[in-house]
Amino acid sequence: MENELIAWLRERLPAHPRLRVGPGDDAAVLRLARHDDCVMTVDLLTDHVDFELAEVDPRRVGRKALAVNLSDLAAMAARPLAAVIAVALPRTGGMALAKALCEGMIPLAEEYDLAIAGGDTNSWDGPLAISITLLGQTTPQGPLLRSGARPGDRIVVTGSFGGSILRHQFDFDPRVEEALAIHQRYGLHAGIDVSDGLSIDLARLCRESRCGAVLDASTIPIADDARRLAEELADGSTPLDHALGDGEDFELILAVPPDEAERMLAERPVEVPLSVVGRFTEEPGLWIVDATGRHELTPSGWEHEFE
Amino acid sequence: MENELIAWLRERLPAHPRLRVGPGDDAAVLRLARHDDCVMTVDLLTDHVDFELAEVDPRRVGRKALAVNLSDLAAMAARPLAAVIAVALPRTGGMALAKALCEGMIPLAEEYDLAIAGGDTNSWDGPLAISITLLGQTTPQGPLLRSGARPGDRIVVTGSFGGSILRHQFDFDPRVEEALAIHQRYGLHAGIDVSDGLSIDLARLCRESRCGAVLDASTIPIADDARRLAEELADGSTPLDHALGDGEDFELILAVPPDEAERMLAERPVEVPLSVVGRFTEEPGLWIVDATGRHELTPSGWEHEFE
Repeated sequence: MENELIAWLRERLPAHPRLRVGPGDDAAVLRLARHDDCVMTVDLLTDHVDFELAEVDPRRVGRKALAVNLSDLAAMAARPLAAVIAVALPRTGGMALAKALCEGMIPLAEEYDLAIAGGDTNSWDGPLAISITLLGQTTPQGPLLRSGARPGDRIVVTGSFGGSILRHQFDFDPRVEEALAIHQRYGLHAGIDVSDGLSIDLARLCRESRCGAVLDASTIPIADDARRLAEELADGSTPLDHALGDGEDFELILAVPPDEAERMLAERPVEVPLSVVGRFTEEPGLWIVDATGRHELTPSGWEHEFE
Repeated sequence: MENELIAWLRERLPAHPRLRVGPGDDAAVLRLARHDDCVMTVDLLTDHVDFELAEVDPRRVGRKALAVNLSDLAAMAARPLAAVIAVALPRTGGMALAKALCEGMIPLAEEYDLAIAGGDTNSWDGPLAISITLLGQTTPQGPLLRSGARPGDRIVVTGSFGGSILRHQFDFDPRVEEALAIHQRYGLHAGIDVSDGLSIDLARLCRESRCGAVLDASTIPIADDARRLAEELADGSTPLDHALGDGEDFELILAVPPDEAERMLAERPVEVPLSVVGRFTEEPGLWIVDATGRHELTPSGWEHEFE
């Protein structure tokens, strides 16, 4: 069956100049001359955790699986080069599912000039699992790490936050072009993408940078869907709670020196809105300032729990 | 929990000069200067298909997951550079399992000078799934593809075949050094590793090379475990049947010009036994010659079945 799928995929995939050998051999062969440093990242998505296959078009699942990986490249300010895709497919309907997943990925790969280089197709009695590995190319400014934020740096975010479960988790645009444009034009110190939650991913960036952060509640861009979700749930949660902890926003958190942040907001170098939502501090920890004062903020968001 | 695992892994992993940034950021950063062409391969292994977690030390599972990927690099005659690892872990016992898998991988990674660059840890209610992606470096002779075999080329194999289920499937040594040494010294035309079965993987190489092959039954190196398995099963299967169709031998099938094959067998360039087991033919198809004559051979081996 794998042969049939490879044959189908070979027909569907556009030729890519970066691929000397594409899907179908023991490995793909990539032309990587002049790419001194590469970044490599993998994300695995599973049914019932990252999506509910019974409730969503599998093409959207395929798109999402690739998009979350592209978001990791964005967080490194790296240009997408190549992808390999591994799937564990349920036995029944596996072929149609595999094709639908690919159909969801291919337009996104083309949009980001990403070479789909190969993969591995498996069947089993378990639920769908998809693992995508991306190779990317850093800019001359080097990779954008989590570890470079300095006290005084402004916290700049792209887009808005919260309520992604309503729609955004499948339809988001990874901030690849934005990250490349901003990193090349401004002296960014650090960056991370928000996959698990604004507050938890900010805390991760702080930990790697050995600093803390203060958020200004009034400046946090709250998505319309965060308001909608708070209203629908009617469980006492506020739109701000959703913005801080929902996750799957796949926006960027950037550490930017104050003068560069000011310049960036004045120049509006990208279409996506940019907001200063706080600053990094010497003292480790996370705080939020609202109308009632300054409060310690417990990072909230998605974490894979296991014992 | 993922933080704890990353911290543990960072302590356990030796520093590697190829890693500018290792596990813990949004992606790993690899130093790849002077690596013009790279190969990239992924393999996903799942519980109940590639191993039975209840019956085997998870360190052996971890080792196997990495070794099957190294075998793909061997099949390309590529030197291992870097790996990223994604796991979907059962919720209970996931942490201990993740650590044991890593403990099984790390010695093998060190043996092959492979940088473990990063990964993604997930938990779910499904069984264990491990996906490893490797990046490799081709030799100045270029990658060893499946597509270069020519009629008249000898079929050369490393090692012996069959009965891998008894032991070899976990303990095999991927033929990385052998492939590099042989590819640099002899004019190899094509190669593949035997993951699914000698006959089925030979058929795959033939298909990509648009040729056929004739095997000489008397020259096929049969593993002791193939004989033992045939005896234990007592189901009418012969040791040769097991050698042709068992799979997970992770030996190499090479297409070698006749004079180079002769030279190779005389010179014995590697410790692993090399055998000429037949030749490639213009006519597509697979045949085997034994004491009773020449017979068409139906490729047998492991295939992921899905509909």
